[in-house]
Amino acid sequence: MSFQEIEGGVTAAVGFRAAGVAAGIKPAGRLDVAVLASDPAAHVAGVFTRNRIPAACVVLGRDRLRGGRAAAIVVNAGNANACTGSRGMVDAEAMCVRTAERLGVPVEQVFCSSTGVIGVPLPMDCLCDGIDRACAALSEDGGADACRAIMTSDQGPKARAVQLEVDGRTVTVGAMAKGAGMIEPNMATMLCYVTTDAAVQPGALQGCLEAAAADSFNRISVDGCQSTNDTLLLLANGRAGNDPLGPGHAAWPTFCAAVRDVCLGLALMIVTDGEGATKVAKVEVTGARDDADARRACRAVANSLLVKTAWYGCDPNWGRVIDAVGYSGAWVDGARVDILYDDVPALQAGTPVADALPKLEKVLAQDRFSVKINLHAGPGSDHVYASDCTEAYVRFNSAYTT
Amino acid sequence: MSFQEIEGGVTAAVGFRAAGVAAGIKPAGRLDVAVLASDPAAHVAGVFTRNRIPAACVVLGRDRLRGGRAAAIVVNAGNANACTGSRGMVDAEAMCVRTAERLGVPVEQVFCSSTGVIGVPLPMDCLCDGIDRACAALSEDGGADACRAIMTSDQGPKARAVQLEVDGRTVTVGAMAKGAGMIEPNMATMLCYVTTDAAVQPGALQGCLEAAAADSFNRISVDGCQSTNDTLLLLANGRAGNDPLGPGHAAWPTFCAAVRDVCLGLALMIVTDGEGATKVAKVEVTGARDDADARRACRAVANSLLVKTAWYGCDPNWGRVIDAVGYSGAWVDGARVDILYDDVPALQAGTPVADALPKLEKVLAQDRFSVKINLHAGPGSDHVYASDCTEAYVRFNSAYTT
Repeated sequence: MSFQEIEGGVTAAVGFRAAGVAAGIKPAGRLDVAVLASDPAAHVAGVFTRNRIPAACVVLGRDRLRGGRAAAIVVNAGNANACTGSRGMVDAEAMCVRTAERLGVPVEQVFCSSTGVIGVPLPMDCLCDGIDRACAALSEDGGADACRAIMTSDQGPKARAVQLEVDGRTVTVGAMAKGAGMIEPNMATMLCYVTTDAAVQPGALQGCLEAAAADSFNRISVDGCQSTNDTLLLLANGRAGNDPLGPGHAAWPTFCAAVRDVCLGLALMIVTDGEGATKVAKVEVTGARDDADARRACRAVANSLLVKTAWYGCDPNWGRVIDAVGYSGAWVDGARVDILYDDVPALQAGTPVADALPKLEKVLAQDRFSVKINLHAGPGSDHVYASDCTEAYVRFNSAYTT
Repeated sequence: MSFQEIEGGVTAAVGFRAAGVAAGIKPAGRLDVAVLASDPAAHVAGVFTRNRIPAACVVLGRDRLRGGRAAAIVVNAGNANACTGSRGMVDAEAMCVRTAERLGVPVEQVFCSSTGVIGVPLPMDCLCDGIDRACAALSEDGGADACRAIMTSDQGPKARAVQLEVDGRTVTVGAMAKGAGMIEPNMATMLCYVTTDAAVQPGALQGCLEAAAADSFNRISVDGCQSTNDTLLLLANGRAGNDPLGPGHAAWPTFCAAVRDVCLGLALMIVTDGEGATKVAKVEVTGARDDADARRACRAVANSLLVKTAWYGCDPNWGRVIDAVGYSGAWVDGARVDILYDDVPALQAGTPVADALPKLEKVLAQDRFSVKINLHAGPGSDHVYASDCTEAYVRFNSAYTT
């Protein structure tokens, strides 16, 4: 009952091919169109943004999900095709049609995603040309190019793969993702495609993906802004030839853990690569009245501008942490609260710990640390990974224009 | 039925004296202790932070409010006396006792406030010395010094006064305030003391102040962080000799409008002087399903880091505005939404307005502009004043240590 990390990403599993090409949507000849194909068509599960103004590709994806099958995914970066009126839906559908025609698969089995600026119509001529070239270039080695093509403000590509044994067969789970801005712990602003050659019972796939998302992409925060385009898809094409996995199969827990591991690894890459981020803190709340309260407190701390700028300044300013807990809506009695950075106590039962500053400053000087908050009010707990907020974030986002 | 702005601030009304001294809590000999006194003791109304971990002075102030009378207010800046355990309550009470002794007034009629860093015990020796000197220096000309003494990261002092006629007598309403960081539209992080020589029925005072706060301090946002120490007090000492004002008095609406005007003027000064702020936008939501939904949408837009950094970059990035509306929790149909900057439409019925960019950029280049969002979903409306988010904010808050 274990799995191992291997090299590779979204084409690591058998039966998946991908390509990334430059279609002229991003400047300077950067890769901006990716196509991913599964042979045969895979069972598919999906999780999408909860933003009430979803992009056209999300509306389409939710609809396609009912069919249960995915033969291909087409993605463009540099333009989100969001808030583009009725034309946006037409363009999203046209992306799928073009891909379906080139690959000879049913259009209902083609998913699309777009990421980039909001409100600008897609340049369909160059996009369709890019789709044609990407479809012609599909290969088992194309995962790396596809992974670069879906990037926006990401500093680097994000891929991960693991292997496990199921029924004496080798099963691979691979994935690619992109992130950077508009990242919030309620489906972070991101695209992620997970592929596996495992055979999985269709009815079990969605639950596996939702559990993985809850423990990974739903626990990261860069800036508290939730995108209109977030998409996470899991494709299982059965090429490994195992008995179909599901709750009754002995290897099901391991498989689900492998999917979760791939998602968590990518989620951490996304928050580490948050726009301008220099460090990542794990905010852990325990002792809340219930889990919902713990989540409120986690989110308030993880999204507090004052907390995030203090982290950037390597400042163990627990006063800003407890301030955020106080306005989070969680039930809290200030006289009971403990706050630790890693294992160094800063506040105990609401009272500052004397002479803790030098030790705390050492913790804050690290790239990664934990902020542990115990409310001593009940059994509730939650955690979130959050990046700091830096001048580089502000510089980047004030210069990045529509 | 009108009022006029006049010179002066918290000592503009008859019977109020104030002083500000340097007690060594702030560095470099800056003024940091203020005392304000009313002769005779005034009727008092108050509004405090809703943060569930309030500072000692807020706990004390809420209790004092039940007595209904204020003879004096003592304030220190540079140290918030928040999260200082049981010692914090003892120190807050000691501030009031010292002031009461020096002025010869009952301690139950003395309010205190503290503002500055959280979690560090008050330096009581130098604070008490400062209180002694401030009490000895009280004067009708002391408003300006008091106003400077309550500043923390404020760029400048914030005072305002207006006059009106009531029963043939001149009534003055004056005030001083401080703000700068931890400013959110749910009692902004601020201190504000409003004084008037009007005679007001005690039962009417609290409602007048709450209505003024709802239209002023509860409608500004700098960084979405709500402080532990927010305090707004209104003192009415009756020296003008008018018939006591209240709902039955013909001048009551004008008096309430005057108090609201003083509060709104100071609230706008606070948001304009938000840490590192270069501009202020009025975010107006109309056509929401109800007022609560309008408020959700307003807050999400006003607190969105991506929106605030776009303003800083003079970028009319309405995509980030509609993204924030989408995740605000407000009911919204993307295909109905209009967005205008001042009177220039950017989005109409969910579709971008062609060739609007040059005109929109002109609007965004201003120091003040409106972002008008019509959801076309019902009668709900709300508005909030918000500052932009700049590199200077991040720089300041990453360097400002405990």
